[in-house]
Amino acid sequence: MRLRVDLLPHGNYPDVVLVIDVLRATTTAVTYLEHGAEALLLTATPEVALALRPELPEGESSPVVLGGERGGLPIPGFDFGNSPVEAAAQNFTGKTVVMNTTNGTGAAHTAAQTGKHVFLAALVNAHAAARRARATATEEIAIVCAGTDEHVGLEDVYAAGVIAEYLLAMGEFSIDDGARIALTLRRNSGNPIEALGGSGHGERLNSLGLGEDVRYAAQLSTSTLVPTLVGGEDVPGGTLKFIAG
Amino acid sequence: MRLRVDLLPHGNYPDVVLVIDVLRATTTAVTYLEHGAEALLLTATPEVALALRPELPEGESSPVVLGGERGGLPIPGFDFGNSPVEAAAQNFTGKTVVMNTTNGTGAAHTAAQTGKHVFLAALVNAHAAARRARATATEEIAIVCAGTDEHVGLEDVYAAGVIAEYLLAMGEFSIDDGARIALTLRRNSGNPIEALGGSGHGERLNSLGLGEDVRYAAQLSTSTLVPTLVGGEDVPGGTLKFIAG
Repeated sequence: MRLRVDLLPHGNYPDVVLVIDVLRATTTAVTYLEHGAEALLLTATPEVALALRPELPEGESSPVVLGGERGGLPIPGFDFGNSPVEAAAQNFTGKTVVMNTTNGTGAAHTAAQTGKHVFLAALVNAHAAARRARATATEEIAIVCAGTDEHVGLEDVYAAGVIAEYLLAMGEFSIDDGARIALTLRRNSGNPIEALGGSGHGERLNSLGLGEDVRYAAQLSTSTLVPTLVGGEDVPGGTLKFIAG
Repeated sequence: MRLRVDLLPHGNYPDVVLVIDVLRATTTAVTYLEHGAEALLLTATPEVALALRPELPEGESSPVVLGGERGGLPIPGFDFGNSPVEAAAQNFTGKTVVMNTTNGTGAAHTAAQTGKHVFLAALVNAHAAARRARATATEEIAIVCAGTDEHVGLEDVYAAGVIAEYLLAMGEFSIDDGARIALTLRRNSGNPIEALGGSGHGERLNSLGLGEDVRYAAQLSTSTLVPTLVGGEDVPGGTLKFIAG
């Protein structure tokens, strides 16, 4: 079995793909599903997301809510930002959450182009994501770091190293240079809060007053839920549907 | 001053760029110039390289020689491969060496699109490359890892970390996540021969019987020569001209 870590999305995934955008999209995705959401629809653009909101009579609660960010800031017309802390304070039972974020949703779309099995992974579901990947894969597990605006994000590579370490504990893998780098980083960058807080993205979120999100994202394996890509005729064009798995 | 390490070529370089393809293109480039070559012409494709060979009367020695590889193997019609050991055994006095390689020459072309000052760096000229970058830069030093077929190469990130470490010794820098990752890798991957030999590319070269090239490339600061991009009307289209600096 091959274990591959792409420090940025690359494509050509033949088998299992774990998509990581630990600050904050995949952490938030896990949180939405933990807090009752029926499904997540990841869209390639904010416009696709906005078009998915149904027109409803005044006062009627929508079964669809929109969450996302551009450059870390809320998107006009969206109901929620991209904050796992904000998501954890709500109940999404019966709701579909439409998500669009700067890097994470794009990485998921790249993964879905060829991947047979696509999951969302973060530190909060690291054990579960590793187990699911290991149980599903037949030839390759690719861990794909979303990065930030096409630059490598230390926080994603660190999280990839955490999951890679679990996978190596479960069995034999041939690993690539990306995995070697992620493992070295994981073993030499301190604990998750130190690693995430010391990344450029973590520093930026802290300076925006979003340090609680960084601390939330640094929790290890607090969820056993793995967002799982599913197909089907009910999935709107331009979106990827993930359900709790 | 900013210090940035791109784990793969990205573009948008405003100032100084150090291009690294330690196995083997930039190591070999330094070696050609060390062994007398007047200039290097890095071409975007093998075809551009082949077109630069002059037609000469039989028996006359050409002032232009071609060196390069595709996938680690020699290119038909070229005089040399991409081996620093092979280059070190020759005398290139008065010659122009036209180089085309799988990853290194492409990375140099990406760097040259916007970079004000473009240099080739490797472990063999690490001290000199760091000094030159520091002396030249006014706002940013970008160290660009060529990688292998759009995948991150551990050997290049390690070498970037070596040079980043020297730069940090010389003065204050704000660093990005790529630099943080490269520094962590450099500090935790053993000595150069261990790091290069343990990379996927190093393993492949060893298995092709090219282990001598890996050991050559793992030498630290044996040259004070920094290949330097120069312009001018005599530079053929589709090529970048580097001279000893």
